[in-house]
Amino acid sequence: MSQLTVALDMMGGDYGPPVTVPAAVQALSLLPELNLVLFGSQTELSPWLRRFRLASHTRVRVQFCSQQVGNEHKAAYALRHLTDSSMRRALDALASGQARACVSAGNTGALMAMAMKTLSTLPGVDRPALITRLPQTGGGHALLLDVGANLNCGAEQLVQFALMGEQAARHILNISHPRIALLNVGAEANKGNEAVREAGLRLQQVDALHYSGYIEGDDLFSGQADVVVCDGFVGNVALKTSEGVARLLLGQRQQRGFLSKILTFWLKKRLSHLNPDQYNGASLIGLRASVVKSHGSAGSPAFLNAILQAVSEIEHDLPASIAHRFDTAPRDSHAR
Amino acid sequence: MSQLTVALDMMGGDYGPPVTVPAAVQALSLLPELNLVLFGSQTELSPWLRRFRLASHTRVRVQFCSQQVGNEHKAAYALRHLTDSSMRRALDALASGQARACVSAGNTGALMAMAMKTLSTLPGVDRPALITRLPQTGGGHALLLDVGANLNCGAEQLVQFALMGEQAARHILNISHPRIALLNVGAEANKGNEAVREAGLRLQQVDALHYSGYIEGDDLFSGQADVVVCDGFVGNVALKTSEGVARLLLGQRQQRGFLSKILTFWLKKRLSHLNPDQYNGASLIGLRASVVKSHGSAGSPAFLNAILQAVSEIEHDLPASIAHRFDTAPRDSHAR
Repeated sequence: MSQLTVALDMMGGDYGPPVTVPAAVQALSLLPELNLVLFGSQTELSPWLRRFRLASHTRVRVQFCSQQVGNEHKAAYALRHLTDSSMRRALDALASGQARACVSAGNTGALMAMAMKTLSTLPGVDRPALITRLPQTGGGHALLLDVGANLNCGAEQLVQFALMGEQAARHILNISHPRIALLNVGAEANKGNEAVREAGLRLQQVDALHYSGYIEGDDLFSGQADVVVCDGFVGNVALKTSEGVARLLLGQRQQRGFLSKILTFWLKKRLSHLNPDQYNGASLIGLRASVVKSHGSAGSPAFLNAILQAVSEIEHDLPASIAHRFDTAPRDSHAR
Repeated sequence: MSQLTVALDMMGGDYGPPVTVPAAVQALSLLPELNLVLFGSQTELSPWLRRFRLASHTRVRVQFCSQQVGNEHKAAYALRHLTDSSMRRALDALASGQARACVSAGNTGALMAMAMKTLSTLPGVDRPALITRLPQTGGGHALLLDVGANLNCGAEQLVQFALMGEQAARHILNISHPRIALLNVGAEANKGNEAVREAGLRLQQVDALHYSGYIEGDDLFSGQADVVVCDGFVGNVALKTSEGVARLLLGQRQQRGFLSKILTFWLKKRLSHLNPDQYNGASLIGLRASVVKSHGSAGSPAFLNAILQAVSEIEHDLPASIAHRFDTAPRDSHAR
């Protein structure tokens, strides 16, 4: 197969094949270079493959697996016992070089644990981080990490996230000198917890890094930073809160009447910024290959977006850029 | 003076007397029972008192102070050296029984430290928490705590916040059996960090508490809980992120043309939910008297709202309710 091969966990997320198969079909028709390796249960996947004539597609290989990772599975359990799951097998395909990126809408904790086991992190990276895009007031995007892969982070991890985020912004957002900020509860130097303050001091010392200081939650969308760094608990709550506000504004209660319906339509268009269908696909970065985590509740358009994001990461060779950054960053500035 | 006396720090926040004096005047005219004790710098406050004829008002007492707490002051410094500041003197007035509640728009860290020193916490309460209201999709409100007073919280503190929040919901929101939830990164029992998981286990054991489990950021506004508990770092980021999303949606860029202006007006009305002018006044609860923290950037209407909130807390005697709850909750369920 060519270099542009993506492994897909067809079973993850709330819907499985009814969502993942149509997305795969569309990705193949959009990108003539793309090859896919599909992993899933024979019983559940086959009818959908037949329906969409995917089984005989020249750029598709199908590998059936006997297990699935559920949302109820703890990471440690999945790691030990679900070695023939579609998620695990898709990651194995990266490790063996069969594919260069992988997409799954499954359990984040299990995906993280399995990815660390099968792919391992890049030299100098302790733990991968989950990174996602945020729309900005003036147009364009910023990146936010971590959004849920690491719930407790020390200063060292936050510094590593900053270096990884910098490369992601350079290659994914195409910003040559991205401004890096730390998410905090105030802008003054004495604000925040120990990890954030220590990370701030250390980021000031990192060579050739544009560190712009602390940023508060109300500036996440204001265009003040290109990369915002925080621990995974805080990032996850911030991301989901923004979705919650969007939903509050679209609350059904006020949609009676024609004018109200028009206004709601207009608002929805504006809120498409925050629509997970368009902003789907957080990436697990810091690993030796690209792993894209699709939203569990993603529909086909959202899962397609996640596939396209995986392709973009292959094309930019994000893992190589991160490896290079960690190789050249002065050791003492981010070593524990 | 009567029982309904509020002490006001006239110097706190970004504006001081130009904002606090008009708010005080309006509060006095709205509430014929209200008495105020005003604390501030003679030079800065006097011209405004003269302008609004407050100096000779029968329900007003003015006490001049020589110092002010700035945003740049660390809590420890303020505590030791700013003992004649308007903030400190207003809190002293609570401690001496001269007033029953206090309002300040000043530095949160200093306010917290000074309040703990002068008022001390209620028996069984380790640290006060900052609590605020959140609008809900179906109408009504929920309470969120802590929103910035305690950046690192263990399980014990989260449990205490739940008990305090329960009483606040009962008396401020008038909900007899409020549903209490913990803010987390997932709804499943195995999600979250250690403090949140341990707090969840302990809340299940608390007598007569309606604990409803974990809630995620996207449900902060969905009406699923009446009280949402988290540490102050997470709560602060969640609250400010929601303000940031509101601002993103009101971004100036798209306001050209007549229709766009009408739509933006409509949207602003809808967003008034999240307008700090209307939702101003987070309270520091768990202390022996009511301390209301106004937004630093509050204008007069917002500062007025904070005064009204202080009055409401006096009328409901929230400190007494919290004291009673901690007295009756079984010791082993919330003792460390």
